[in-house]
Amino acid sequence: MQKKNVAVVGVTGYTGMELIRILNVHPGFEIGAVTSRSEAGRALQELFPAMQGTRSGSIAVTFPDPELVARDCEIVFLAVPHGAAMDMAAAFLDQGSRVVDLSADFRLRDPGEYATWYGLEHGRQERLKEAVYGLPEIYREQIAAANLVANPGCYPSSVILALYPGLKKELFHAEGIIADSKSGTSGAGRVAKTGTLFCEVADSFRAYSLGSHRHTPEMEQELSLASGRDMRLSFSPHLVPMNRGILSTCYVDLRSSIQTEEIRKAYREFYKDSPWVRIMPEGVLPETRWVRGTMFCDLGFVHDQRTGRLIIVSCIDNLCRGASGQAVANANLMSGYDLDLGLDAAPLMP
Amino acid sequence: MQKKNVAVVGVTGYTGMELIRILNVHPGFEIGAVTSRSEAGRALQELFPAMQGTRSGSIAVTFPDPELVARDCEIVFLAVPHGAAMDMAAAFLDQGSRVVDLSADFRLRDPGEYATWYGLEHGRQERLKEAVYGLPEIYREQIAAANLVANPGCYPSSVILALYPGLKKELFHAEGIIADSKSGTSGAGRVAKTGTLFCEVADSFRAYSLGSHRHTPEMEQELSLASGRDMRLSFSPHLVPMNRGILSTCYVDLRSSIQTEEIRKAYREFYKDSPWVRIMPEGVLPETRWVRGTMFCDLGFVHDQRTGRLIIVSCIDNLCRGASGQAVANANLMSGYDLDLGLDAAPLMP
Amino acid sequence: MQKKNVAVVGVTGYTGMELIRILNVHPGFEIGAVTSRSEAGRALQELFPAMQGTRSGSIAVTFPDPELVARDCEIVFLAVPHGAAMDMAAAFLDQGSRVVDLSADFRLRDPGEYATWYGLEHGRQERLKEAVYGLPEIYREQIAAANLVANPGCYPSSVILALYPGLKKELFHAEGIIADSKSGTSGAGRVAKTGTLFCEVADSFRAYSLGSHRHTPEMEQELSLASGRDMRLSFSPHLVPMNRGILSTCYVDLRSSIQTEEIRKAYREFYKDSPWVRIMPEGVLPETRWVRGTMFCDLGFVHDQRTGRLIIVSCIDNLCRGASGQAVANANLMSGYDLDLGLDAAPLMP
Amino acid sequence: MQKKNVAVVGVTGYTGMELIRILNVHPGFEIGAVTSRSEAGRALQELFPAMQGTRSGSIAVTFPDPELVARDCEIVFLAVPHGAAMDMAAAFLDQGSRVVDLSADFRLRDPGEYATWYGLEHGRQERLKEAVYGLPEIYREQIAAANLVANPGCYPSSVILALYPGLKKELFHAEGIIADSKSGTSGAGRVAKTGTLFCEVADSFRAYSLGSHRHTPEMEQELSLASGRDMRLSFSPHLVPMNRGILSTCYVDLRSSIQTEEIRKAYREFYKDSPWVRIMPEGVLPETRWVRGTMFCDLGFVHDQRTGRLIIVSCIDNLCRGASGQAVANANLMSGYDLDLGLDAAPLMP
Repeated sequence: MQKKNVAVVGVTGYTGMELIRILNVHPGFEIGAVTSRSEAGRALQELFPAMQGTRSGSIAVTFPDPELVARDCEIVFLAVPHGAAMDMAAAFLDQGSRVVDLSADFRLRDPGEYATWYGLEHGRQERLKEAVYGLPEIYREQIAAANLVANPGCYPSSVILALYPGLKKELFHAEGIIADSKSGTSGAGRVAKTGTLFCEVADSFRAYSLGSHRHTPEMEQELSLASGRDMRLSFSPHLVPMNRGILSTCYVDLRSSIQTEEIRKAYREFYKDSPWVRIMPEGVLPETRWVRGTMFCDLGFVHDQRTGRLIIVSCIDNLCRGASGQAVANANLMSGYDLDLGLDAAPLMP
Repeated sequence: MQKKNVAVVGVTGYTGMELIRILNVHPGFEIGAVTSRSEAGRALQELFPAMQGTRSGSIAVTFPDPELVARDCEIVFLAVPHGAAMDMAAAFLDQGSRVVDLSADFRLRDPGEYATWYGLEHGRQERLKEAVYGLPEIYREQIAAANLVANPGCYPSSVILALYPGLKKELFHAEGIIADSKSGTSGAGRVAKTGTLFCEVADSFRAYSLGSHRHTPEMEQELSLASGRDMRLSFSPHLVPMNRGILSTCYVDLRSSIQTEEIRKAYREFYKDSPWVRIMPEGVLPETRWVRGTMFCDLGFVHDQRTGRLIIVSCIDNLCRGASGQAVANANLMSGYDLDLGLDAAPLMP
Repeated sequence: MQKKNVAVVGVTGYTGMELIRILNVHPGFEIGAVTSRSEAGRALQELFPAMQGTRSGSIAVTFPDPELVARDCEIVFLAVPHGAAMDMAAAFLDQGSRVVDLSADFRLRDPGEYATWYGLEHGRQERLKEAVYGLPEIYREQIAAANLVANPGCYPSSVILALYPGLKKELFHAEGIIADSKSGTSGAGRVAKTGTLFCEVADSFRAYSLGSHRHTPEMEQELSLASGRDMRLSFSPHLVPMNRGILSTCYVDLRSSIQTEEIRKAYREFYKDSPWVRIMPEGVLPETRWVRGTMFCDLGFVHDQRTGRLIIVSCIDNLCRGASGQAVANANLMSGYDLDLGLDAAPLMP
Repeated sequence: MQKKNVAVVGVTGYTGMELIRILNVHPGFEIGAVTSRSEAGRALQELFPAMQGTRSGSIAVTFPDPELVARDCEIVFLAVPHGAAMDMAAAFLDQGSRVVDLSADFRLRDPGEYATWYGLEHGRQERLKEAVYGLPEIYREQIAAANLVANPGCYPSSVILALYPGLKKELFHAEGIIADSKSGTSGAGRVAKTGTLFCEVADSFRAYSLGSHRHTPEMEQELSLASGRDMRLSFSPHLVPMNRGILSTCYVDLRSSIQTEEIRKAYREFYKDSPWVRIMPEGVLPETRWVRGTMFCDLGFVHDQRTGRLIIVSCIDNLCRGASGQAVANANLMSGYDLDLGLDAAPLMP
């Protein structure tokens, strides 16, 4: 297989590291450039001794120069903070690269919403218009043709995959939905902060940003498209003392007394082309370790007969399916590869 | 202070261990007997080397003999499995002891409900009638006078304390309430099972018994009494890779557009005599480590303006407030002691 | 590539699960049979929902029948307890299969040592004679030709790789060596025991079997061969609250005041054909997460000038390099494949 | 009991928090002042919501003013970084306070050693001369009379208590001793650093500062005094993914073939006045959770017959016995109180 050169722009965070891990053995991509403002000049294995002796270990990290990078690399993975990403994406696009942006900068179609939730004006609205939301199960064709893919957030990946088919098929009401999500600590990033020190997280559990997390409008945007209604969601994130994984417990009101097995069938049908969405059988609820290091999204269904509610439990790996693995999946589609090329490993368990 | 003799019946589980930990330095109680069918004849410190060199370490574990125990001990803490507890409680009561039962056997006032949820007939209905539900914030006087206290379950302690005042004062609707709870693994007990091995729990997260957990009717019973309505609750337990702690995220629909500060005020008023229920100020959400090893129940409030929902976050230590510490609090009341005698330690953090 | 059929005999433990994980995407092997006495008749994904939707998920677990298995599978991975393994290995060999035994049954060349340490007579001494110790860096050719490979223990893999070259090249003394090892809890297996429950391991640390662990004679056997002396080692295992990984801190007395860089050079030379042994540069000490899910063995060297001691720190993944991955590496050699075929993934971090 | 006023100077780190936890319910001390440069003006419970509703929660944090503090407080606990501590200690002493310094500034009797290991000149050598090393089991009388107590480091507390009696009584050789120590992550402090983020520590294990840790000269100083020889020790610290606890595995060479039971007897004799040093019986090895939140130092002994070595395993809680609890014990002695006043809680387990 003739490999395509790709670039990883921003490599010091967990999503950058995860991109390197995946690309390191990907049969269709070669890492042509790795850039970082703070680490330029060092070999990748100096930053990450864990990469010593691997194919990518000796790659030299360079300063991010769109012109140079675009010369060598067809696809650029942007793993830099929101705000910074929008200008860099534009610069790479201007040089002719195709971009998968892992930040939030191109996820919200309405720049007003972006300004409201992220507290800054969107300076690249012309590029925003051409961005495609990179959830392969929903936008497969658009992604394949896109020059700019907005890679979904981790929580939205988990919640949208759980709710989209049911809203699309009108199995449950669009009103009153709650997504109570629990995430591993890698979702908080690799910047040194007291709040994510080991001793502040281990052997404890907490909620945060209830009703005000920035991933809320992203979920509402996509789920509103599914339901054809302007939706409002209660989204409650929590921090779990574990490295990876998101479990979302979603509460919905069924439209009619449909059997749970019918719901499973409808979901299986909706996701029949996805190699990754797994519908758990009756009596089985997913666990985050079952998806560790993979692209799987495991969905479990419980009909609480006493309250009439349907509970959908969704598990993903926030760094792989919720960020870097999904970015590579999008690059696969953009390259005409099989969707799961290089993304078919079984979960690492325990 | 003249100490009262108490007995710990069943000591091999986590609640038994926690009782010993608390009673070991309690100024008002002396451990007069520790019993265990499987460990009779050994010293406590042989079972639990952690107790060596403490006041209780050399206590000899005996076979549970109600007659002998009752002769020495005024109050008996029963830390044996449900089903076994009802007969033992009756035996101790018959001998003139007062009993704090940590099992589920006397929590449900309706023996039919007990049969439905626990799958066995209640064989001690005459005793069930005299049992008092041991939540000190609600049944303080009744507990003081009781001979048989049904110590609340861990999840119910967390959820009832979060919702009771609001239902009593009709701040929110009794319908449609969801309690999404997350518990440390000690709640699953100390019996060897594959599912609670370190490598099956660590670095992972899962839901279980959604809509079917046995603590559901206990919550509904007490909350129905608060609201004056026959309530149905969605209760969703989850397992957290931590030792202790329960965090419950409770979703309720407000009756009117009451200010969150008003709600806090109402809760502060309701709990004004409790040394342990702490109402977090605006912007602060509780964490389980803040209550580790204590009787505190921390409550945080968020009004999600976009959906109109009130979210109440409740944190307790499942072994202390949710089991053994609460049992000792009940024994304090039964003995005419200050409620928090021996229960005033600050949380161990980190 | 024409794939060879292999069998996994014993699949309910962590090493069985890890074999499935690795073989599931191995380009040279097809899982032809999976057997388990207790789980025969079920699909693999019923046992391990994490395997749903993977290539191996729908494989039916069968009862272990050597005749049937040998008909289909050239190589058999034995992941059953010691004691049981020796007879099963013999049965598969009699049917013409080649066997990689993950138990301890064929590791000790001296059946007397086996009897001493494992407390039972070795009933298959004729097969013991033909067994090859499966450490690829040392016995590559013999493994390639073997019909019976004794897959090394996890601790021995870690310690032997750390010490073998230095003893062989007489860089340090063979006397007085200490290996202070720390292992993740998966090394204790998946059998339900109180001592490895989450709440008995998490947020704690302990030593066990000091001076008496069964892996001691295995290390001594191989290191004695390296040094040409009958060696005695102090081996101290400890239990770490983590899933995977072994870190061994080895203390040796240098023969002369050789520079640490010379030692590194000697080790690099010794391991020049190994894709996996990584010699950390000056100032870098390995961490278990750097090898998670991989075959790497990371070695760090510190010369303590004040005491004259050399400290060698060795990290492996106990389930992959210390068990199932190494078994697949051995099967690669037995099949004439590249040593690292299907074993070249980068570590999953965090 | 008439309580003495004490001050906690420096409260934002883990040792400051632990001091507050212990003092909060101490029957002999009242917290008269809490100071912090960065947090002056806030209530303690704003910094640490976990302290809400406790006796100390509403204490106002003030700027550290020795004159003001000394007016109210007889004893000052200094919980500020080394380097800063020496001048503050001098200032408080000048005002007539007695000082327990939790930093390293007054632990090394030789200012040259201090300069070598800490990289700065000791500017308060006149005060250094009067400092007493605050290990109650060894310096009980001197501590009682001291105005300046140098509270021992966490690792040294663990290692000195393990080795002192054996060296004093010449049970083993002073040469060639190794202390392989493993510490919970709270030992690394509460300053935000990438290396101690949850995702850099959890589910992993590493060694650090091998042969070069600053606690080495402190151990050597005290153990040399015990043995009457100028000792050199191999000290190897490791980082454990847990909050609290240190386990040190110490390797020594016995002088003669003394029975392990004799060694236990000698240790019991040496520590007969200590309420906290617990000698584990034959076959029992200590675990860090057995000492969580306490002053216990648990010692286990194994004679490795095959190598002739004695292995001593020592467990303490690094924040309580290894820092703040020990500081309070020293203040107890300085106040003429019982050594274990307010320090007799049983371990929190699990």
